[in-house]
Amino acid sequence: MRICHDQFEIRTQGKGTYEITGEIQEKIDKNGVRSGTVTIFIQHTSCSLIVMENADPTARKDLEEFFERLVPEDSDYFMHTAEGGDDSTSHIRMVLTRTSETVPIIDGKMQLGTWQGIFLFEHRRAPHRRKVCVTTIGQ
Amino acid sequence: MRICHDQFEIRTQGKGTYEITGEIQEKIDKNGVRSGTVTIFIQHTSCSLIVMENADPTARKDLEEFFERLVPEDSDYFMHTAEGGDDSTSHIRMVLTRTSETVPIIDGKMQLGTWQGIFLFEHRRAPHRRKVCVTTIGQ
Amino acid sequence: MRICHDQFEIRTQGKGTYEITGEIQEKIDKNGVRSGTVTIFIQHTSCSLIVMENADPTARKDLEEFFERLVPEDSDYFMHTAEGGDDSTSHIRMVLTRTSETVPIIDGKMQLGTWQGIFLFEHRRAPHRRKVCVTTIGQ
Repeated sequence: MRICHDQFEIRTQGKGTYEITGEIQEKIDKNGVRSGTVTIFIQHTSCSLIVMENADPTARKDLEEFFERLVPEDSDYFMHTAEGGDDSTSHIRMVLTRTSETVPIIDGKMQLGTWQGIFLFEHRRAPHRRKVCVTTIGQ
Repeated sequence: MRICHDQFEIRTQGKGTYEITGEIQEKIDKNGVRSGTVTIFIQHTSCSLIVMENADPTARKDLEEFFERLVPEDSDYFMHTAEGGDDSTSHIRMVLTRTSETVPIIDGKMQLGTWQGIFLFEHRRAPHRRKVCVTTIGQ
Repeated sequence: MRICHDQFEIRTQGKGTYEITGEIQEKIDKNGVRSGTVTIFIQHTSCSLIVMENADPTARKDLEEFFERLVPEDSDYFMHTAEGGDDSTSHIRMVLTRTSETVPIIDGKMQLGTWQGIFLFEHRRAPHRRKVCVTTIGQ
């Protein structure tokens, strides 16, 4: 049993979902863990982590539109607006989604279902560099 | 320290919450892990995982009704509708809830609180077979 | 590789967010785990766990107000009201947020981002004693 810590950076170009399944599997391949778990952890409070359907891009478009309507930028009660209209909305959308996920690894592969992909969900309008931690535990 | 991977299937009969606490504890019992963690992972994008009050069924009825209203099937902006009115709503409700949870195990038992149960939350109208991964790490 | 189970209690004084980052790091320090993961697990169904911006208190005020509006106490379809108007809303807000999170530990420290804090999100009006489980796996 051993623990491997890795990290990678993803550059986002505004709001939207960015698939990171390949980057995570690459870290597992590099470490050579055959049986265990991988924990993905996002080190930010204005973007988040989701597992999502990765076949039809319209599924993600609908998801993004849903969040625009659920947590609208122009909410009149927002006080935390120092960084703009997407400041409080970013944190709230992050809380409504996820910061960490743990996925089983068997035979060196993440045990994702057929339609599951792992995505970084960017909630900021401006481009950002986002750090993703990948921790594998196993043998 | 060792890792055990298990899986079980649950047949759902339309939208709703299905308790799976017993099935998960059975896998832990079978593996004989006394101290460690269990990670539950759902391999689907149109159902999800929740921890929920498991004593009074009306608590879950209210939760289900809340999600029907929060993510209504007839939203006019949905583009991802190939599989019906419950297609995009299923993915969005899944993202708003959870795909994995990790629970401590002490003395061979999941350390759930008095009122906590673990449920699969089915977001599809039609019956489905759902796969749940159960990974225990411990000794 | 070893597993350490700890628990602490936090007394809440009504609805709101209560930072517990320090209490969690204390348990890691006590156990002496230098490299691994920590899983935080909340043993309740009417409060929840969130990672949130911990610098500007107005960010959390906006979040709390958002949840008051998203899941209002006076919803006319609620059936689960035995414990008051905050009964069903507590469970629903819990499901929309989180019960467990897993965070990497490197050099004995949780790998949180600059602005990330870990909070217990209390959904009940009355004061409560809340139990938080802290499980570290590592070496």
